[in-house]
Formats: sequence, C-alpha cells, structure tokens
Amino acid sequence: MPLVVYEFPLNEKVRNYLRVEHLFSALEQPEKICKQHNEIQFFRDYFTLLELIERIDLKTELLRDLNQYHTILDTWLTYPNVDIARIQIQRDIVLSIINKLKDAKRIGQELKSDRFLTAIRQRFTIPGATCSFDLPKLHYWLSLNAQVKQINLTQWVEPLLLLKDSIATTLQFIRSRSELLPVTAKNGFYQGIADNKVELIRVQATKNMPYYPTLSGNKYRYAVRFLEFTQHDNHNASIDESIEFLMASC
Amino acid sequence: MPLVVYEFPLNEKVRNYLRVEHLFSALEQPEKICKQHNEIQFFRDYFTLLELIERIDLKTELLRDLNQYHTILDTWLTYPNVDIARIQIQRDIVLSIINKLKDAKRIGQELKSDRFLTAIRQRFTIPGATCSFDLPKLHYWLSLNAQVKQINLTQWVEPLLLLKDSIATTLQFIRSRSELLPVTAKNGFYQGIADNKVELIRVQATKNMPYYPTLSGNKYRYAVRFLEFTQHDNHNASIDESIEFLMASC
Repeated sequence: MPLVVYEFPLNEKVRNYLRVEHLFSALEQPEKICKQHNEIQFFRDYFTLLELIERIDLKTELLRDLNQYHTILDTWLTYPNVDIARIQIQRDIVLSIINKLKDAKRIGQELKSDRFLTAIRQRFTIPGATCSFDLPKLHYWLSLNAQVKQINLTQWVEPLLLLKDSIATTLQFIRSRSELLPVTAKNGFYQGIADNKVELIRVQATKNMPYYPTLSGNKYRYAVRFLEFTQHDNHNASIDESIEFLMASC
Repeated sequence: MPLVVYEFPLNEKVRNYLRVEHLFSALEQPEKICKQHNEIQFFRDYFTLLELIERIDLKTELLRDLNQYHTILDTWLTYPNVDIARIQIQRDIVLSIINKLKDAKRIGQELKSDRFLTAIRQRFTIPGATCSFDLPKLHYWLSLNAQVKQINLTQWVEPLLLLKDSIATTLQFIRSRSELLPVTAKNGFYQGIADNKVELIRVQATKNMPYYPTLSGNKYRYAVRFLEFTQHDNHNASIDESIEFLMASC
C-alpha cells in the first residue's frame, strides 16, 4: 500500500534543517533541470536557499549535532554483537564532514563574487519578474545550449555541497533515533509527551486515507490531530473513527 | 541559425500583458506538470498570477485594445485584394472575446471560495515554506494520484481561460503591428523614435552572439544597448563592433 510521510520539527533548528534539505532536493540533476526547462525554478529555490543560509548560523548547530552523532557511534563500538565494520565506516564519514565543516569559511561566501548570480538575484524577489524585459541577461543565459547551462548549474551548487552532506548526515542521525511504531488516534487525536531529546515527529500514513495529520506542540508535549481532506467544504468535520498510523518520535 | 527574441514594453499596460502571458505559460499541460512533479511551481506561478489580476484592472484596457483591433479588421475588409474569409474569421474571434469579456464578472472571483487554494495560498508568500510541516494539507494533495491532481489543476485554471485568450489575442494584435526589420547598432547602440502608438519593441538576435540587448525608453524615444554577456568580469566592456539584428516597433 503506498505510504506518505509527514515530518514535524519540534524546534527551530530541525525546522531549518528540513527546509534546507527540501530546497536542496530541487537543485539536483542539472541535466533534468535543463531538459524540463526548470531553470527559473532552480534559481528561485537556489536564491531562497542562499537567503536562508545567510540569515541563520547553521554551522554551529550542525557541528554540535555531528559531534554528538560521532560520540554515539563511538559508544556503539563498545557494545557486543554489533556490526563493527559498518559503524566504523559511518563514524569515518561523520568525522570527515566534521573536519571539513570546521575548516570551511562561511558557506556560500565565494558565490558573492559571481556577477551573473548577483545581477539576477535582486529581481527574483519581485513576484513574476522573470520576463525577458525584466532580466534580458537571464533570458540570454536561458538561450545558451544545455551543456553550458548544466556546467553553470553544477558550478553554482558545488560550493554548497558540504552543507548538503552535513544536513543529510545530521538528519539521518536524527531520523534514526526512533523507529516508526503503530499508534492509534482516537477521534483523530493523539497526544504525546516529548522528553527533552525529541526534536522531530514523523507520521506515516497510508495514501488512500481521507485524512492528513497536523501537529501542534513544543519540546515538552505535542498533539497530532488528523483533519479530513476537503476541497470545497467550509468547516472541519469532526472525526468519529480511530485512525491507525505509524509514528516515530526522534 | 537559432534565434532568440527579447520583448521590451514601453508602457505599464503592455508590461502587465507580457507578465500575465509569461505566467500562463507555466500553467499549461497539467499532465506534464504532474509527471515532472512541478506542482509546487504551478502553485507559485498561479498565485502570482492571481495577485497580479487582483491588483490591476486588466479588463478595461483589454476591452479598449480588442475594440481597436476589431475596428482595424473591419477597415481591412474594405481594402481590395485581401483575404476576406481569413479576416472575417479573425474578426469573429475578436468579437466573441469582447462579448465574453463584457459579460464576465471579475476574473478569478469564483476561486475565492476554493477552500484548498485559500488555505495554501497564504503560505506561498513565505520563502521556502512548502515543506510537509508548513503545509500538511498540500503534502496530502501532492500524494494523490496524478489523475485527480490533473483534474484539479484544470479546474483551477479554467476560470482564467477567458483572460488567457484575451491577453493572447491582444498581444497577437500588438505584435502584428510591425514586422521584424534589419537594424544596425553602431558600437552596440541604437536609438529610435517611438511615435505615440508604439508600445512594444521586439529584438531578435542570433543565439551565438555574445551580446544581449537592454532597453531604456519611454513612449517618445527609446534606446537599445547591447551588453557583452560575461559571468565573472566586473565591468561592462565597451563594444567596438556594429551589431546586426532584427527589430520591430509595435
């Protein structure tokens, strides 16, 4: 049965991690971007990502989480009957990212000297301002052949790859903290207590279910409430049935 | 030789027409949108279009232009040696759009009662706010099967189709006012005088030319200046050669 996962961060840090991960997903596969003529979309997500990176200090928090991940992997190595080789590989990956991140200057700094990006970036804050008269320079770039554009796209993303790897590894760590377990939401409502360590609630639901989950909460407690998906009705119908779903408190 | 066309409006009205036309181009082909997973992109352009439509009064200006088009087609019918049948067909199309536009209520008004659109629209103004935790309802909709989504996309665009046709016909009229003719820009610079009727400058250049055109001007005069396309250089090199291009003052 097809499944869909909803992720709800319980703090600002994980919220930013997820946002950055989400934006990166749109910047992959330059070949596909050019083929599907999604270059404008690329720039939009790219500039949103740069704005986010410039506004918040991800490096400090990532280093703290990665160091914690490293410590935990070290502890695991002392346990009996574990796959030592696999844990060591993972520990080396984490350590390598930590060292690169420590040595890195401010992420994305070198992109500031890219004249083309700087020129078109300002315009992207204006809604719909991507016509040929708004940005003839962009219009020229769009007319270049796909190979040239693909090289450019790759070059622009390259300085951000360390951030991408750091976020991916950290989120992998956070997500791996807990397994998805079956839970019942009576009348579509489930309340949970989050201890201090819980930062992310993951909800997995079956695709054909007519409900979607919403979450309210903080680092102490949280509530998952399912709402009926309606497009035209003007009020939320109350849910009488119990909803079975899978949940992980990570 | 591959060509690329740059269009520069000389007034706010044509600027809006081109912007609306540009946004509509991203809303076509619901099947392709779902297949390429460009739904988020669809919503972004769709909401930008709605914002534009709500902010400006396109109807009055479109009716004025379409009536003018109709009058001109009528005059053409009195000329000798014209393709009467073809002109009559075009005149009927224009007349039909005029009548529909006159009868139409405020364009897009019925979309205000669409609960789903209203719910997700607010979030789209926040940069990058399209994660599953920002919009679980959208995340649910994205998980629906492609057929359902395609029907929705078609339904949402449907109330705007009259506007789309009106804009397309009006721009066809404006663009048809003048042919592309060869022009030379000495040292990359060309100055022209726009009489009162000229509203749009179209520049066609060959694709492998290392320059892109920019335009400054108003309804009395305008200047096309070619700039060298550079990505890393920090100053605009002056252009010594004469650039041949095609231009239409519509």
